Amino acid sequence: MAGDALALARTLIERESVTPADAGCQELIGERLSAAGFAVERLRFGEVDNLWAVAGDSGPLLCFAGHTDVVPTGPLEDWSHPPFTATIENDWLIGRGASDMKSSVAAMVCAAERFRANYPEHGGRVAFLLTSDEEGPAVDGTRAVMEWLAARGIAIDYCLVGEPSSTDTLGDTVKNGRRGSLNGHARVRGRQGHVAYPHKADNALHRLLALLADLAAHHWDDGDEFFPPTSFQVSNLEAGTGAENVIPGVAEARFNWRFNPTQNEASIRAHVEERCEAHGIATDAIQWRLSGAPFITREGALIDATRAAIREHAGIDTLLSTAGGTSDGRFIAPTGAQVLELGPLNDTIHQANEKIAAADVEHLSRIYEGIVRRLLV
Amino acid sequence: MAGDALALARTLIERESVTPADAGCQELIGERLSAAGFAVERLRFGEVDNLWAVAGDSGPLLCFAGHTDVVPTGPLEDWSHPPFTATIENDWLIGRGASDMKSSVAAMVCAAERFRANYPEHGGRVAFLLTSDEEGPAVDGTRAVMEWLAARGIAIDYCLVGEPSSTDTLGDTVKNGRRGSLNGHARVRGRQGHVAYPHKADNALHRLLALLADLAAHHWDDGDEFFPPTSFQVSNLEAGTGAENVIPGVAEARFNWRFNPTQNEASIRAHVEERCEAHGIATDAIQWRLSGAPFITREGALIDATRAAIREHAGIDTLLSTAGGTSDGRFIAPTGAQVLELGPLNDTIHQANEKIAAADVEHLSRIYEGIVRRLLV
Repeated sequence: MAGDALALARTLIERESVTPADAGCQELIGERLSAAGFAVERLRFGEVDNLWAVAGDSGPLLCFAGHTDVVPTGPLEDWSHPPFTATIENDWLIGRGASDMKSSVAAMVCAAERFRANYPEHGGRVAFLLTSDEEGPAVDGTRAVMEWLAARGIAIDYCLVGEPSSTDTLGDTVKNGRRGSLNGHARVRGRQGHVAYPHKADNALHRLLALLADLAAHHWDDGDEFFPPTSFQVSNLEAGTGAENVIPGVAEARFNWRFNPTQNEASIRAHVEERCEAHGIATDAIQWRLSGAPFITREGALIDATRAAIREHAGIDTLLSTAGGTSDGRFIAPTGAQVLELGPLNDTIHQANEKIAAADVEHLSRIYEGIVRRLLV
Repeated sequence: MAGDALALARTLIERESVTPADAGCQELIGERLSAAGFAVERLRFGEVDNLWAVAGDSGPLLCFAGHTDVVPTGPLEDWSHPPFTATIENDWLIGRGASDMKSSVAAMVCAAERFRANYPEHGGRVAFLLTSDEEGPAVDGTRAVMEWLAARGIAIDYCLVGEPSSTDTLGDTVKNGRRGSLNGHARVRGRQGHVAYPHKADNALHRLLALLADLAAHHWDDGDEFFPPTSFQVSNLEAGTGAENVIPGVAEARFNWRFNPTQNEASIRAHVEERCEAHGIATDAIQWRLSGAPFITREGALIDATRAAIREHAGIDTLLSTAGGTSDGRFIAPTGAQVLELGPLNDTIHQANEKIAAADVEHLSRIYEGIVRRLLV
C-alpha cells in the first residue's frame, strides 16, 4: 500500500473522526511514518489527539501540518452515498473529509514515504504536525503542540498546511497568509431617564454611537501588496426599553476587525481606547477576544519551491492569495515559519457529498513531494 | 348652591368619568352656565363629549379650558377612601380628579357665575371649552373643538387652562408655555453580508449610527428666555442578527426632540434630511410624528392680570414656567391665543389618594374671578 495516496485517503475517510475524535487515524499514520524512519510522538491534550513526527537530524525543518478531524455530516439523507464509506463513483472520491482534509493528509504521508525512500541521505528534516481539533475550539490542538515544540526549542522553517486552497484546478491557488480577526463587545453604562428631562439623565446610547461612528469612519491603513485595508464592522447594537420617552441607561454592541499585518491587537486597542476617552467611555466597557493574528509568507524559498512543483506536476502557474477565513496557520506563522496552505478544491467542503477528483489525491502527493525535494535535497 | 365651588367639585368627583366617559358632568355644568346667561353647545365627536359655552356679545374673548375626564383609579385597595366618594377628611378633599382637574372646573364655573352676577354689563366675552378626552388620545377633544371654532370664525384671546400647575402653594407657579415634541422612527436598509467580505455588503448600521452621532452632536439652538435649548435623544436602536460575523442589512432607531419655539417640525426635518443625504440614507427611511408644537405666552395682559389676581387672593408672587409635559394648551395656543395654565398643586395627580386642600377650591375660584374682572371690566 505504501505510496498509494488514494487508498490511504479512503482508509482515513472510513474512520468517523468527527471533532474532536481521531478514530485511530493518527495511530495508523504514526505506524506508517515510523516505518519510514520518523520519530513519532503522540500528544494527547485534554480530549484532543495530536501527533508530532520528525525524520532527519539537522538543517532546515519542513513540516506538513493538517488535521484528522472532520465536521459533522449533516442530514444523512442529503448524501448520495453514506459519508464514511469513501465511495468512488465516476472518478470522484466522495465522503466526509475527502477535500477537508484527509486526502491532503494521505498525500503528505505518501509524499514523505517516497521522499525518504528516494533520498535516504537528504539534508534537513521532514516533520508532521497533526491534530484532531482544527474544526473545533482549536485550543488543545495545533496551538498546544506549538507550545510543546517551543518548550523543546524546536522551530519550524517551512510549513505546508493541507487546507483546501484550490479554486478551479488543483494548485491554482495557494494561501500565503490570512488576515487577523479581533472581536470587541462594548457595554456602555449611563443613567436612564425621561426624554423630557435630559439634564437628569446620561444617554448611554449617545456615547456608544459617537464612538462607533468615529471608528467606522476611521481609515485604519492602506493594506499592502498582499492584503486589503483593515476593515471594521459593527455586527450588532442594542439599546432602549422599547418606550419612546425613556433615555437608555445601557447600550451594547459587538464589532469585529479583519486586519492586515500592518496592525495588531495592541495597535487597534490603543486607537479604540484613545477614542473611548474622547467620548467619555470607560476603557473597561469593552471586552476583547482575538480570534487570530494575521500572518504573511513573503517571496522566498518556500514560495519558489511550491510554484515550481505546481508548474511541474500540474502544468499551471499558481496564484498567491490571503482571502478567506482563519486556519491553523495562524498558530504556526507567529514563530517565524514560512507557511503556505496548499490543498484540494474547496467547493464542496463542509457540505453534503463532499468530494475530490480521485486523481487529484496522487497529483497532490506528487506536488508535495516536489516541494520537499526542492527544499531539502 | 351657586358660588359654592367645593360643593360643585364634590358633585363632579362623584361621577365616574374615566376617559372618555363624561358621566353627566358637562350636562350639569351646561345647566349652570345656561342659568348664568351662557349660550351652551354640546359637541360630541366620536365617543368624546365636549362643551362650548359663551356669554357676552363682543370684545375680547376669555376662555376657561379644562376636562371632565379623569385617569383610572388604579388598585382600589391603595385608596384610603373610595375614589368616587369625594370624601373630606382633615380639611382635604380626596378623590380621583380632586386636583386633575374637577376642582379647577368647579372653581371656573363658580367664578363665571359670580362675575356674570356682579358685572352684568361687563365688556368682552367669557367662554368655556370642556372635553372628556384630555387624558386619552386627545384627538376628538380640544383639538376637534378648536377646528369647530375655527370653522365658525371664533378666536380665543385669553385662555386659562385649569391644569394643576402649582408646586408648594396654590398659585406659586403658572405655566406660560410648553416645549414641542417630535418623534422620528428610522429604518435604514443596506445589504447583509459576511464580515470577512465587507466589499460585498453595505452595513445599514454604519449609515444609521453616522447619522445619529451627527444629530446627537448637533447644537440645535440656545433656547431663549423661557426655554432651554432644543434637545435630541435617541431612545431605541436595534440592529444585527446576533451572530458576530454577519454585517446587518437593516437597522432601526427611534428618537425624539423636545424643542423650543425657535424651532418647528419643518426646521428640524430640513436639517435631518440634509444630513440623511450626507450619510447616504433615503429621506423616506424616516417616519415622523409631531406630538405637539411648542407654545409660549409672553408678557402681556393675561400674565399681568394673573399675577395681580394671585397676589391679591393668595398673597404671593407667581413664577412663570415652561417645564413638564404636554397639555391641551398645545391645541389652543397656535391660533394666537394667550394661554396660561393655572390650577391646584400637582403632587398627587394620577396617584392613589389624589387630593386638594379643601379651602383651595374656593381660593382658586376667587383667583380665576379676579383675572376675568381685570381683563373684562
